[in-house]
Amino acid sequence: MATETIEVEGHIIDSLILAKVLDTILASGADYQILDVAIGRTNTDTSRAVLQVDAIDDDALNALVEVLQVHGANRVGSRDVALVACDQDGVLPAGFYSTTNLPTEVRVDGRWLPVVNPEMDCALVVAGDIVRTVPMHRVTIGDLVVVGGDGVRVHAPSKRGGLNAFEFMNSEVSSEKPKALLVARVAERLKECRARGGKILAVCGPAVVHTGAAPDIARLVRDGWIDVLFAGNGFATHDIESNVLGTSLGVSVDVGLPVEHGHSNHLRVINEVRRWGSIEAAVQGEFITGGVMYECVKRPIPFVLGGSIRDDGPLPDVHRDVVAAADAMRESIAGVEVALMLASTLHGIATGNILPAGVETFCVDINHAVLTKLADRGSHQALGIVTDVGLFTRDLCTALG
Amino acid sequence: MATETIEVEGHIIDSLILAKVLDTILASGADYQILDVAIGRTNTDTSRAVLQVDAIDDDALNALVEVLQVHGANRVGSRDVALVACDQDGVLPAGFYSTTNLPTEVRVDGRWLPVVNPEMDCALVVAGDIVRTVPMHRVTIGDLVVVGGDGVRVHAPSKRGGLNAFEFMNSEVSSEKPKALLVARVAERLKECRARGGKILAVCGPAVVHTGAAPDIARLVRDGWIDVLFAGNGFATHDIESNVLGTSLGVSVDVGLPVEHGHSNHLRVINEVRRWGSIEAAVQGEFITGGVMYECVKRPIPFVLGGSIRDDGPLPDVHRDVVAAADAMRESIAGVEVALMLASTLHGIATGNILPAGVETFCVDINHAVLTKLADRGSHQALGIVTDVGLFTRDLCTALG
Amino acid sequence: MATETIEVEGHIIDSLILAKVLDTILASGADYQILDVAIGRTNTDTSRAVLQVDAIDDDALNALVEVLQVHGANRVGSRDVALVACDQDGVLPAGFYSTTNLPTEVRVDGRWLPVVNPEMDCALVVAGDIVRTVPMHRVTIGDLVVVGGDGVRVHAPSKRGGLNAFEFMNSEVSSEKPKALLVARVAERLKECRARGGKILAVCGPAVVHTGAAPDIARLVRDGWIDVLFAGNGFATHDIESNVLGTSLGVSVDVGLPVEHGHSNHLRVINEVRRWGSIEAAVQGEFITGGVMYECVKRPIPFVLGGSIRDDGPLPDVHRDVVAAADAMRESIAGVEVALMLASTLHGIATGNILPAGVETFCVDINHAVLTKLADRGSHQALGIVTDVGLFTRDLCTALG
Amino acid sequence: MATETIEVEGHIIDSLILAKVLDTILASGADYQILDVAIGRTNTDTSRAVLQVDAIDDDALNALVEVLQVHGANRVGSRDVALVACDQDGVLPAGFYSTTNLPTEVRVDGRWLPVVNPEMDCALVVAGDIVRTVPMHRVTIGDLVVVGGDGVRVHAPSKRGGLNAFEFMNSEVSSEKPKALLVARVAERLKECRARGGKILAVCGPAVVHTGAAPDIARLVRDGWIDVLFAGNGFATHDIESNVLGTSLGVSVDVGLPVEHGHSNHLRVINEVRRWGSIEAAVQGEFITGGVMYECVKRPIPFVLGGSIRDDGPLPDVHRDVVAAADAMRESIAGVEVALMLASTLHGIATGNILPAGVETFCVDINHAVLTKLADRGSHQALGIVTDVGLFTRDLCTALG
Repeated sequence: MATETIEVEGHIIDSLILAKVLDTILASGADYQILDVAIGRTNTDTSRAVLQVDAIDDDALNALVEVLQVHGANRVGSRDVALVACDQDGVLPAGFYSTTNLPTEVRVDGRWLPVVNPEMDCALVVAGDIVRTVPMHRVTIGDLVVVGGDGVRVHAPSKRGGLNAFEFMNSEVSSEKPKALLVARVAERLKECRARGGKILAVCGPAVVHTGAAPDIARLVRDGWIDVLFAGNGFATHDIESNVLGTSLGVSVDVGLPVEHGHSNHLRVINEVRRWGSIEAAVQGEFITGGVMYECVKRPIPFVLGGSIRDDGPLPDVHRDVVAAADAMRESIAGVEVALMLASTLHGIATGNILPAGVETFCVDINHAVLTKLADRGSHQALGIVTDVGLFTRDLCTALG
Repeated sequence: MATETIEVEGHIIDSLILAKVLDTILASGADYQILDVAIGRTNTDTSRAVLQVDAIDDDALNALVEVLQVHGANRVGSRDVALVACDQDGVLPAGFYSTTNLPTEVRVDGRWLPVVNPEMDCALVVAGDIVRTVPMHRVTIGDLVVVGGDGVRVHAPSKRGGLNAFEFMNSEVSSEKPKALLVARVAERLKECRARGGKILAVCGPAVVHTGAAPDIARLVRDGWIDVLFAGNGFATHDIESNVLGTSLGVSVDVGLPVEHGHSNHLRVINEVRRWGSIEAAVQGEFITGGVMYECVKRPIPFVLGGSIRDDGPLPDVHRDVVAAADAMRESIAGVEVALMLASTLHGIATGNILPAGVETFCVDINHAVLTKLADRGSHQALGIVTDVGLFTRDLCTALG
Repeated sequence: MATETIEVEGHIIDSLILAKVLDTILASGADYQILDVAIGRTNTDTSRAVLQVDAIDDDALNALVEVLQVHGANRVGSRDVALVACDQDGVLPAGFYSTTNLPTEVRVDGRWLPVVNPEMDCALVVAGDIVRTVPMHRVTIGDLVVVGGDGVRVHAPSKRGGLNAFEFMNSEVSSEKPKALLVARVAERLKECRARGGKILAVCGPAVVHTGAAPDIARLVRDGWIDVLFAGNGFATHDIESNVLGTSLGVSVDVGLPVEHGHSNHLRVINEVRRWGSIEAAVQGEFITGGVMYECVKRPIPFVLGGSIRDDGPLPDVHRDVVAAADAMRESIAGVEVALMLASTLHGIATGNILPAGVETFCVDINHAVLTKLADRGSHQALGIVTDVGLFTRDLCTALG
Repeated sequence: MATETIEVEGHIIDSLILAKVLDTILASGADYQILDVAIGRTNTDTSRAVLQVDAIDDDALNALVEVLQVHGANRVGSRDVALVACDQDGVLPAGFYSTTNLPTEVRVDGRWLPVVNPEMDCALVVAGDIVRTVPMHRVTIGDLVVVGGDGVRVHAPSKRGGLNAFEFMNSEVSSEKPKALLVARVAERLKECRARGGKILAVCGPAVVHTGAAPDIARLVRDGWIDVLFAGNGFATHDIESNVLGTSLGVSVDVGLPVEHGHSNHLRVINEVRRWGSIEAAVQGEFITGGVMYECVKRPIPFVLGGSIRDDGPLPDVHRDVVAAADAMRESIAGVEVALMLASTLHGIATGNILPAGVETFCVDINHAVLTKLADRGSHQALGIVTDVGLFTRDLCTALG
């Protein structure tokens, strides 16, 4: 038998944290004893629990403790982290500490140093007083990487993403909520975010264009509601196509042409933008005169178009190297406090993978299964809204004035 | 008004082709007159119809004729193709002919030359007597590209993909079919394909591993039922993880750990394979000793792992450049006659984009919406099966002996 | 071997009818020869085909011909119908002719008599010159029932429900259509229907209330857009609850109370209406002062509330006997030309079962599978719209002024 | 402001109970103070919390306390219940106490009396020392009904239905679980139930027959694994049809006949059983010689067929009165400890409405949305399994030997 003492602190009752911790222990075949518990008397007080965890052996215990940390539970104790230098570019030392996306601190020489940029599934690299998350492919020989779990502590997710969002996310009920209420709620959060100077990220899938929501997104960009845009070749192409080939769009989205490959308009648009060399050049050359991508160039706001193996073309701005695309996304998310994921599975999941836990995320999709998949990726702050992205976006635009 | 005469030939009644052609004409706002029609008397005879199509102007007519060609309808007439040389790498001449995935012929100097490798959304490049489809990004300065639709004709899809498959694909009924019957049917097709020397392609998503079907797929590879494998970083990683970390898998897929990012096993596995340098090296070094990827290396059969922006790591074999990944897939599909798409949306769509129309395709997924999306990509021969990929694959294995 | 000659006439090419007929023949293991075919030259001309069908024996042939009649194909020949008298109430003679929902004629004494009220899955009862469909449970001893298929002919469904609606219905694409366009289209159909004096039927599920669409439906009733309402205990109860318990609704639909059985408001409302004795009495007594049911009573328009085994209470107006409920629905559909099914599976299917084929039907639901199920019930004129019923209904209201 | 003290006891941490209670309080706009909390040290110890709840007024407080009771929270205090006699058949006194499905006790003359038959959404009727739940429609003049919440206490749901089942139910992950493991788990529960003398209830939808699982269910009945069967007209009809019309079934479920109303076999079967007068008579008369309904008659086990407004016929055994159907179901569930709901939405929800909270329930369906709907009905012990009911049932049969 192997034993460890862990503690968890924060809104651990009303955010389900303690329940999840206990359940995870039992589900893994381990057992627990509650050594100490102090529950806050009011909903603004935090609570704290100390548990003894008993697992069958050290391997099981370490695996379990690692999982528990995703829920905000830390080992009790105060050793420094162990550091091992990389001996190969892009390869981590065995036993590397694998990050959550929660606020994290690392003890070096007796001092707790905050991790600058929380991101899950990364390594922690210590350089002097600076601790950063680094994805596997970016470590280089000599980087000092944290190994094992000693000297690392995380902070439990705050109340905001508690039961409400969770229930919403996981319950079909959400498709039966009065949608006017939900739209108002999202609009309010966007206003609060902008008021406090936070950035807003939009992640858009092609259905945003197909359902007629692109002009609304364009307006949001123009009016300063969106600070960063992530999308793929499909979204950008259809957005440009609908602006460049005006009337043709009327045909292509009409009833009689349900076969996506029934027309070549998107290929011709991609081809012409490739001739210009970039979306920005095509805007400057007045080949593109409106739409979401146009507004991004004009305002300007940064956008990242990540490639995928199903892409036609692709557009010259699309990152063909997916690792480079994710790196570009990482560089763009500093300051983002609210993320709006609109009918985007692939880019939505990719974005969820790199956002810190604290970013409030609204996922809108007509397919319940997509939202569940997004939620399963571990985001603590995601609210899934099962609705029609076309109608939702138009109403959101109206609500934002 | 603009007018064109088109003809369509083959099993145009029982494969819905004529109905779709007429409907597409009306839906686009154009009109038609049937000039001639000869309907085969028995179900093995082919039929032929000649139509006059009247559209509002030349642009509308050309757009419509392009769409009709996806259904197998050709312009009547016998001019040679027009060819224009590319003047920029990766950019096509304006007005380039955009391909369907149907068998296609091109008239050059009065002779009809077959297109060697039908693929949709490509250009046609003529070099002497050889006509090939070439994706936009691969054309180079000087390539002679077909422009306009003159001198190009396609052959209507054959009977096999007719109403039955279509109904199946688009009807929830399929989730209520006796599954034993469906499994038997797929098994029979695979046997026929192998008997005639055709190749079988499998496209696998991560759920294949999660639902416990990986050992069955591994057996299919070992027994020679699969000739090419397409997948992503997720499938390969989870397959290797389940073999390398044996008992750990028991934990990771257990009830208590639903959060995908709750454990780092997949990262550790990726990290070690990166240290080996390739999956093949890791197999040779006996780090990997079983599973689907192991069997692919051992038999050996070619596999293509296409990257995506949501990938962790990725594994060293994963194509980070998505355009290169699609090119690698293109090079692997020669001779493929049956494709089996198992719980794979992204790679399934990407594969559907490059396969010729004649490849018989079985798509298995528990989510009806995914299958509809795959079907919408234009494949004429796709049969969607709404069922549990884990249970289905095991039964298929049994049926194949 | 058994042989029969059948004919099919109408828009048999562009409505897919001939394709379905041929496919059904082959799928059943039978074979065909096309004896004669005349295809209309323009899209307003009708076409006609005569086929010889060869099946393995008489039973197989009769089963097949019965199925083909659902697609509008009739036996060629001109014998009178055979009639057999019922010898037991509620039980039909063996071999009874089972109806489609298409316009049907019956030959009696050499004259073709129209069936007054087409409905599928019924018997045909002849009384003098009057031929009616009668559901099994309503036949009585002595009723003269048509047996066998001789002397019965149906008329193929018209163009309106052709490929477009079919594609819509069966394709996820519909969830990606510009919804403004769809709303406008439905609004236009409702206007046309009212202009020509046709009746409009609305079938509503409880989600209509939950998503906040009830006030919009109430307005449609008040403004004369709805002539008949079908619903269940749930819809009526939640509609009344939201009006009677005003502020309580605000709570019950709020985020924090996702458990449907977490409050008893709906029970209290049902209990009070039971005390009044009927919804109408509760309206007269000013217990109910607004909402959909209120407007139905006030205008007045007829409504049928069909019971189900999951009902609480139920309300006094709910038909507890489901057979009586369906009979009440049958009596209310005379003159209905457009049906609007809003987030209603059970009542939607029940309504689809009794409507004649010619009624244009719009089904709105966020769940694609529900729409497919509705379509599979055999309605030729159904258009499925995958969207949020709350947002859709509000927009429809606006479009109708 | 209005204030109440409530307490909650049991596995309130690991079953999420306390978290839900606190969250519900905040979501309703009320506030709380934790007066006392005692948390069990190990996973077998129970915990207890006492809370002061502050709401805006008495109405809000009472509504909130009622909702909290669904989670197992009771008012602290020890007054007797208030009783009011009914003055109208089928109508309850205003202010009646509305039940949960949890084990409940009522204080009468200072003694706590257990409620004999917990069922949600009912009234409590006290007759001497006996307290029973009674649905609204069954109360008669003079019945003494509990009004208000004083003197009623419920017991929190036990551990079994805690986080695991909840997560399963609400997470798409379940469709990606190794299904062999899930089948084994369900089989084990059924074995345990039978070993301890508990009854097993099966609720079957028509898809059970369509997917080929009916012979497996028949075997389970024959081998004594099923003690009660609930279904509708559709399931029973298709089961009988598949047995009576043997070869015809082969046709009807074949690829080429996807239109449900394309054949009349089910009508002919219903008609003949109506002629016999009952399913039992048709079995005795050897019209029915196999299948699920046959085995139910032969063994015999009780079955309840509840009618619905979409029914054809219906079969003579079908309860046309839905209220009588629900009453018949109520009378059949005594002793049921495990419920198996197979591809049944309507009957599944109806069954969930009447089962006590303690009955372990496994819901199998290929449609995730259906399972969510079943779970939302308030069952604490439901485990949803997203899979193919045909393949699942066959495997379950094998696992049960």
